[in-house]
Amino acid sequence: MANLIPSGSITSASGFLAGAVRAGIKSKDELDLAILCSQAPCKAAGVFTTSQIKSAPVILSQKRITKGRAQAVVVNSGCANACVGERGLTDAAGMANLAAAKIDISPEEVLVASTGVIGVPLPMDKIRAGIPKIKLTKDGGHDFCRAIMTTDTRPKEMAVQIDMKGVKVTIGGVAKGAGMLHPNLATMLCFIASDAVVSPDFLQTALKKAVDYSFNMVSIDGDTSPSDCVFLLANGLAGNQPIDFDNGDAFQEALNAVCTHLAKSIARDGEGATKLIEVTVERAKDQNEARQAARAVAGSPLVKAAIHGNDPNWGRIVAALGRSGARVREDRLDVYLNDIRVMKQGCPALFSKDEMISALRNNDNVLIKLCLNLGDGQATAWGCDLSEEYVTINSAYTT
Amino acid sequence: MANLIPSGSITSASGFLAGAVRAGIKSKDELDLAILCSQAPCKAAGVFTTSQIKSAPVILSQKRITKGRAQAVVVNSGCANACVGERGLTDAAGMANLAAAKIDISPEEVLVASTGVIGVPLPMDKIRAGIPKIKLTKDGGHDFCRAIMTTDTRPKEMAVQIDMKGVKVTIGGVAKGAGMLHPNLATMLCFIASDAVVSPDFLQTALKKAVDYSFNMVSIDGDTSPSDCVFLLANGLAGNQPIDFDNGDAFQEALNAVCTHLAKSIARDGEGATKLIEVTVERAKDQNEARQAARAVAGSPLVKAAIHGNDPNWGRIVAALGRSGARVREDRLDVYLNDIRVMKQGCPALFSKDEMISALRNNDNVLIKLCLNLGDGQATAWGCDLSEEYVTINSAYTT
Repeated sequence: MANLIPSGSITSASGFLAGAVRAGIKSKDELDLAILCSQAPCKAAGVFTTSQIKSAPVILSQKRITKGRAQAVVVNSGCANACVGERGLTDAAGMANLAAAKIDISPEEVLVASTGVIGVPLPMDKIRAGIPKIKLTKDGGHDFCRAIMTTDTRPKEMAVQIDMKGVKVTIGGVAKGAGMLHPNLATMLCFIASDAVVSPDFLQTALKKAVDYSFNMVSIDGDTSPSDCVFLLANGLAGNQPIDFDNGDAFQEALNAVCTHLAKSIARDGEGATKLIEVTVERAKDQNEARQAARAVAGSPLVKAAIHGNDPNWGRIVAALGRSGARVREDRLDVYLNDIRVMKQGCPALFSKDEMISALRNNDNVLIKLCLNLGDGQATAWGCDLSEEYVTINSAYTT
Repeated sequence: MANLIPSGSITSASGFLAGAVRAGIKSKDELDLAILCSQAPCKAAGVFTTSQIKSAPVILSQKRITKGRAQAVVVNSGCANACVGERGLTDAAGMANLAAAKIDISPEEVLVASTGVIGVPLPMDKIRAGIPKIKLTKDGGHDFCRAIMTTDTRPKEMAVQIDMKGVKVTIGGVAKGAGMLHPNLATMLCFIASDAVVSPDFLQTALKKAVDYSFNMVSIDGDTSPSDCVFLLANGLAGNQPIDFDNGDAFQEALNAVCTHLAKSIARDGEGATKLIEVTVERAKDQNEARQAARAVAGSPLVKAAIHGNDPNWGRIVAALGRSGARVREDRLDVYLNDIRVMKQGCPALFSKDEMISALRNNDNVLIKLCLNLGDGQATAWGCDLSEEYVTINSAYTT
């Protein structure tokens, strides 16, 4: 089992420093430019947006990470550096060069990420003025975490520790989410840093698995951004016995725990959200169909709006399931809302509607469970309710 | 060219009668039970929900329509007769029997449709009391149209006439939409009646084509209902030369016109909608990718919320395109908003933001055009803006 590190962050693992400044890229006077760096070279893995439109930092970082190593990340919020033509790539590389010069490593060892408005060039003068001012410290993880926030209302960070034959190995992560979130990955940035000694192939496989299990099961609004990425750096300073496919279970489990915590935090902090919705699908035909079904229900605007109104309108849950693509036999279907059965074998089950409404009203975690009784596929997805506030936030973002 | 019939409806074609009553199925005192019938047997075609969860009326009607004929439709709003187990099928058949007895035709000739809340049994006592009170008249189409409305704010109906070598052939249609609307089909009912003499095979093919081109290109909120259906009845009373695949172009065009008008009316009247969004994709790799792209943009909550706020945030349009599945080359992409180019070859185009905002504010039709410059695929999709009102409506539907 992985142990939670109290107040842990991206700099909890040995040898990682971070820091952030207010560079003036965001319109609000907030931290918006940050660096994470390791005191030793790292094995690196990455997962990126599946959109056909990719931001310049994604194109650059995706290329650099193919060699499986990196030593630092430079990131800004307030401007996505996307849809600005050739200039975007020049600016992303320029931002990496500035960070590399500050840390005194090769620019090829620097990954870049940007989040914010699309179609606006990166203000390079502000990046140029800001980077030298960043102070890299051992407890800079919290500032790093704050600097990547956009419409997030809370920082999202976590670190855990596992014991590898007496050697402590740490994994810390930070993420931003909030709007435009949907499988697969959305305007979501996540950075994970570990001091594990680990093989690069295993690292990439483990990260992909953890992302599929966590971030790819989060749905806020069905949209996906050109900027999404998850980076994982491991510098080996823990000195553990090298982790690989044959002995990686504990590391995988700890990585899943960090990613799941961050994914749920993102869902709970969806734009305008007041509730976390957790959808578990059991006994689907197979795991793939379970994933489809869980994501469809967690992402349904009608389900989300009903939950917002504390309305036990399970018909909408069933309707979303029906169009998910997963095979369903109505006469085998059981549905539970907060552990109370609302549908049994395709028919309405008896429950007290008043009690249910009051339970929904007094709980900001809503559990939806669908038991398909067709096979052994199981999956969980997370979403949030849909509030008037979501619309208000999103109808005036650039104006 | 098809000519519009002023104040046309489902009873505009020769030999069709309709009527409706307030049966008390809806909680509001409104028309909620209706019959359409033809004075002669009809060729019949149907297109149904793709959901794995189908309402009882859909199961019954889908089976009956396979023989390619029908003479009447009985429909109620206020209760979907879905997810209630075996009882649903008994009640749907019972409702058809009552209508058949009233009109004095075989129950097998009666199609059934229901829309409303899911998981509640059909109140058969109210159906039984209501059906005998329905007065079938030549101008009952408008009442029929009103009786199928749920959260619709306006009736949706249209009739057109074409000239087949001197013989007038009429097509009239009514539809309901409003919430839970998404390709393919959503809580959407549409009934079309024509006096054409037409082959049943052609009729089914023509209806499928018209639906693909119209209703399947409408997106309100990404959800799809178990109750969706489109019926087309043709009684042959116009006495035209039989229409078939070799001479069906004018009929197809007229049918497309009726369906497109109804589809756009549905989009414009989406729950809480204040604007119609029309998304045209040009020069996609192929038509299928053009359809995918147009639907993704028209259905994006972030695009819809931006349009609601008169916000020319074209980055969201491009982001939705990017994750649509259609191939995109950013450096070839041009984007227009209300005919003003906002992106040229992947880069921001110069335009006056103030003028654009004011043009968006003063227009309740918003045109989005994406030119992909990759092939000859072309498609148009329709949606509506996303308002706070949508959430308010949908967070308290059953409570």
